[in-house]
Amino acid sequence: MPAYTLVIGNKNYSSWSLRPWLALKMAGVPFEEIQVLLYRPDTNALLASHSATGKVPVLKITEGGKTLTVWDSLAICETIAERHPEAQLWPSDPDARAVARSYAAEMHSSFPDVRKHLSMNFATTVPTPALDEATDKQVARIINAWESALAGRDDGFLFGRFSIADCMYAPVASRFLTYGIDLPAASAGYVARLMELPALKEWRAAAEAELAKGWTLAV
Amino acid sequence: MPAYTLVIGNKNYSSWSLRPWLALKMAGVPFEEIQVLLYRPDTNALLASHSATGKVPVLKITEGGKTLTVWDSLAICETIAERHPEAQLWPSDPDARAVARSYAAEMHSSFPDVRKHLSMNFATTVPTPALDEATDKQVARIINAWESALAGRDDGFLFGRFSIADCMYAPVASRFLTYGIDLPAASAGYVARLMELPALKEWRAAAEAELAKGWTLAV
Repeated sequence: MPAYTLVIGNKNYSSWSLRPWLALKMAGVPFEEIQVLLYRPDTNALLASHSATGKVPVLKITEGGKTLTVWDSLAICETIAERHPEAQLWPSDPDARAVARSYAAEMHSSFPDVRKHLSMNFATTVPTPALDEATDKQVARIINAWESALAGRDDGFLFGRFSIADCMYAPVASRFLTYGIDLPAASAGYVARLMELPALKEWRAAAEAELAKGWTLAV
Repeated sequence: MPAYTLVIGNKNYSSWSLRPWLALKMAGVPFEEIQVLLYRPDTNALLASHSATGKVPVLKITEGGKTLTVWDSLAICETIAERHPEAQLWPSDPDARAVARSYAAEMHSSFPDVRKHLSMNFATTVPTPALDEATDKQVARIINAWESALAGRDDGFLFGRFSIADCMYAPVASRFLTYGIDLPAASAGYVARLMELPALKEWRAAAEAELAKGWTLAV
């Protein structure tokens, strides 16, 4: 059995870290965590010691004395799904899987203004800011995608059973709560169900503890 | 046998379109093309008629009277790889596959300044521009990643046999040629081998024909 180590950033801020962390938790795969605090003088040096990309997340898979380094949130999620088919991290139906991959990849490559203006701040809520046109349009596209996948359902996740599409959108759910974004009923229920997952409650408690320790953004 | 239709943008400009087009070509999978010309008054309406994302590329898979819509370059590539295992679009070794997916996903989510300042212009060459620090750093990371994968080899592709990692980086190879970016020997050889692929020669001829017809960027 290989040993997994996931290198992540601050739980309060690192949306990219949350995705594969949640995939490992939902797959029930044991793993060690290494946390690199972001926005510190030694952050870049520490990140460079873990990956040539200088970014989190990074997954190290150690087996038989050799360590394989896998990086980027989506590649790590695909690798976990492939190595743990029993966890069913993608829908088992090939057509549903192709669409779930479309959702995951769209989130992975898109929505730059949502990232910039509604950045993840997991354990905090703030008054809803005025959104510029680009951000507003991207928020509308995300809600449209969620409503289409949920099709009015008031249970389950984007593709019924929890999948990597939900890992990719979990940070967005957190952002919508932080910034008080108005959601239609199915999407609001989806966000609430995500946040009730024991894994996300654990992540939230850790994010709160970070803030209590003063691990905030550099000023 | 399902029928595939790929919706793409201008071959001279649409880097996202090139990736799955190349995957289908290299897999030897027959497909129809629908081209939506970008930067035209009717572009947005046409894009919206093909996908709720309003973007290219989009793959339509029609079988038994039903059409499945798959979108986003990386999700389309994964779907083609999964449905055509004989094409071996990912390395067969699981460790190499995890790293190839890391390469593909890093390209998919990163390098925003390369996209902005060295945008794809397939059939054109221009004098090398002065690069700002962010762009320069991203170019250096790409070259570092290529050199690491090629390890001095003067044949084959990033992971030996052609893979989706090469589909994702083919537009970058084109950019480096367009803007005359200095490359170390292994990377320069890799770019040259990519451009010698019959599929990329076909893409280039089509991009040249587009420019000859005046299908340029809106001014």
